[in-house]
Amino acid sequence: MSSPLRLGIAGLGTVGIGVVKILQRHADLLALRSGRPVTITAVSARDRMKNRDADLSAYRWEDDPMAVATAPDVDVFVELIGGDAGIARDSIETALRAGKDVVTANKALLALHGQPLAELAESLGRVIRFEAAVAGGIPVIKSMTESLAGNRITRVMGVMNGTCNYILTRMESAGLPYEAVFEEARQLGYLEADPTLDVGGIDAGHKLAILSSIAFGTQVSFDAVEIEGIERVSIDDIHRARDMGYRIKLLGVAQMTPRGLEQRMAPCLVPADSPLGQLVGGTNMVVIEGDSVGQIVLRGAGAGEGPTASAVMSDIVEIARGVRLPVFGQPAAGLVAAQPARTAVPAAYYMRLELQDKPGALAKVATVLGDAGISIDRMRQYGQHSPASVPVLVVTHKTMPEAIDYAIEALPRTGVLVSDPVELRIEEV
Amino acid sequence: MSSPLRLGIAGLGTVGIGVVKILQRHADLLALRSGRPVTITAVSARDRMKNRDADLSAYRWEDDPMAVATAPDVDVFVELIGGDAGIARDSIETALRAGKDVVTANKALLALHGQPLAELAESLGRVIRFEAAVAGGIPVIKSMTESLAGNRITRVMGVMNGTCNYILTRMESAGLPYEAVFEEARQLGYLEADPTLDVGGIDAGHKLAILSSIAFGTQVSFDAVEIEGIERVSIDDIHRARDMGYRIKLLGVAQMTPRGLEQRMAPCLVPADSPLGQLVGGTNMVVIEGDSVGQIVLRGAGAGEGPTASAVMSDIVEIARGVRLPVFGQPAAGLVAAQPARTAVPAAYYMRLELQDKPGALAKVATVLGDAGISIDRMRQYGQHSPASVPVLVVTHKTMPEAIDYAIEALPRTGVLVSDPVELRIEEV
Repeated sequence: MSSPLRLGIAGLGTVGIGVVKILQRHADLLALRSGRPVTITAVSARDRMKNRDADLSAYRWEDDPMAVATAPDVDVFVELIGGDAGIARDSIETALRAGKDVVTANKALLALHGQPLAELAESLGRVIRFEAAVAGGIPVIKSMTESLAGNRITRVMGVMNGTCNYILTRMESAGLPYEAVFEEARQLGYLEADPTLDVGGIDAGHKLAILSSIAFGTQVSFDAVEIEGIERVSIDDIHRARDMGYRIKLLGVAQMTPRGLEQRMAPCLVPADSPLGQLVGGTNMVVIEGDSVGQIVLRGAGAGEGPTASAVMSDIVEIARGVRLPVFGQPAAGLVAAQPARTAVPAAYYMRLELQDKPGALAKVATVLGDAGISIDRMRQYGQHSPASVPVLVVTHKTMPEAIDYAIEALPRTGVLVSDPVELRIEEV
Repeated sequence: MSSPLRLGIAGLGTVGIGVVKILQRHADLLALRSGRPVTITAVSARDRMKNRDADLSAYRWEDDPMAVATAPDVDVFVELIGGDAGIARDSIETALRAGKDVVTANKALLALHGQPLAELAESLGRVIRFEAAVAGGIPVIKSMTESLAGNRITRVMGVMNGTCNYILTRMESAGLPYEAVFEEARQLGYLEADPTLDVGGIDAGHKLAILSSIAFGTQVSFDAVEIEGIERVSIDDIHRARDMGYRIKLLGVAQMTPRGLEQRMAPCLVPADSPLGQLVGGTNMVVIEGDSVGQIVLRGAGAGEGPTASAVMSDIVEIARGVRLPVFGQPAAGLVAAQPARTAVPAAYYMRLELQDKPGALAKVATVLGDAGISIDRMRQYGQHSPASVPVLVVTHKTMPEAIDYAIEALPRTGVLVSDPVELRIEEV
């Protein structure tokens, strides 16, 4: 058996401790599977005195993660500090320059600085692995980079923020408005310190940007992701969508279109009986479509100690086995800068309009939709909602987003709406 | 860029031609992702004159697959002939001895002879990859061998024969008996020449045996798989199960129990709203449970030219990238022979009893169940089925299979049954 692979772990939060526990619990199994022992040499975290749920006495303690990144007895630097800059980025760069491979769970860092980091690593002959950065324990990076390597990827989709899916699911099951469930989630500790990272779609957007890069051979570009959070999803829309056979999900979609690379993370309707529609609670799902494989669906826990540590371990075992792949699946120097593009793929849309309850109101709406070139698949008018308004739901036939934009702008000018129209794309899944 | 990886392909059926097409269509993409060109040197099939949907003129034709297996200008022998012995096995062994790596889609061969083949390959420093052997385009071998390498796998389950799932789904949706749908499937060309491979559960059993070996570090042992096909699944049971909130699937389950390794492929009930319960038609699904990752669900096409060729290509790219793993994820020489065991995991069971419509019949049944130590979760008696019989459904609380055996043996002795009792395990998913 070969010499051990020696790890230095920086960051001993939930994930870091999860990794330590797996290494302690399964040392023999990991050695068998890796072909060599995998050991921890040094660990580092902010507060040495903090009570942690693991025995760290066998490992050298470093107050400074930089000392781990440069330690001569460390082969792989495991960065679990987090954050898109500062010590996380600095220590990774230092580790690469010191000849270490890097394993990280840091989605923000990769989404924002993945390209220069990949170029640096590859120029030094080092690898950076990051299975845990996207969708926790779900093997999505490996599936896309390796299992689907024979495919031109045509579309990647995913529900990749468990907190948002929890909130949307709970709104439906409890019939509660967004604000109430948001408050519940906060009290349950489900939200980040800055909750807009979750509910604003930013965390999920980071993940989508990483997947896009691998899928389409483009430089990772978080800035090009169109992002909309779940804050404006109303309980009304959740109920109405359900009536029409749909569920609302914070769905990331990336696809290469004739106009360029479309990347969007926004609330969408999906059929209630599709795998994405049936996903409840904090579970994640990634859907990958390739020209040969068709559609592959991957489902699992997107967060938590065990699942995330499991993903980190898959990267560590990969390096222990001597597997050395380019960071984004093909050489970083050859990745092209994608032309960001709004979707060029027609879709059905859901619209909810609150109309004045007076003769001719519906005719005016229908005229605007007709002028926009939008044809209607289904329309439902409900009984009076408040004294002076009636909700009208429209599901359109497939149409271009520009037509929807035109309608959304023109509809208020009819003078028959009592509130702003709501539109949500119905993603074909 | 390194020297090309040179393939020799033996077998030009659906999958072989699919692989050729991908290599032709995506030569540049594959070179980029593999770090080197991937080329075809030689091909072989039974009938050179057969009209095939691909231009093979650039490749050397060999009538004898052995010539491909030994050709000096072939690095990887791609065996797509099929069959659990004969030329498939001989040519693989010859290729390994000639210093070639091997990629195959041959589940029967691996299930029946995987252990000696793996030992041979590893003693020669060669690899055998077989992603396409299990669940077509779904990356289950790679996920289990690599992505979940940090986990002790606790259970593997799967719907891995699309034809059986098509038949069961179609029985439910069309309300047709097994025989009628079997005949439909035959006319649609969904069945193997020997249909018992499909409906008898043998094909799916091969796949389960392969997954078990990787999951539990045991020598692949198809003989130890308890197999029951779908022939005895009646339309009555499908309807009754649905009434109780379940669907019937041909489900493979492997788990390590205190008694030994349990491997069974049999019709089971699963909750209708679970991912497995919602799987309709020919799609496959594999569920893997690990001690850290929790439950991972993988879903996709289990057969067909594109999906299966996609899986073969993932193996080819892996070898092109220089990745060299043990055949079953850890050295074959260290794999232990598993003690086969009947399930030791208690479960709820579904029972359908056709009772004589006379006083005291139900009491006699309840007495037998009580004597067996089986406690009843739900019971439903339906209206008369035929003049002299009433169907009674029982869903038990969790119980050991031995108790069910006792009851199934004792129930006919009550004298109140008009036909043999039916029992199906309800798998907790």
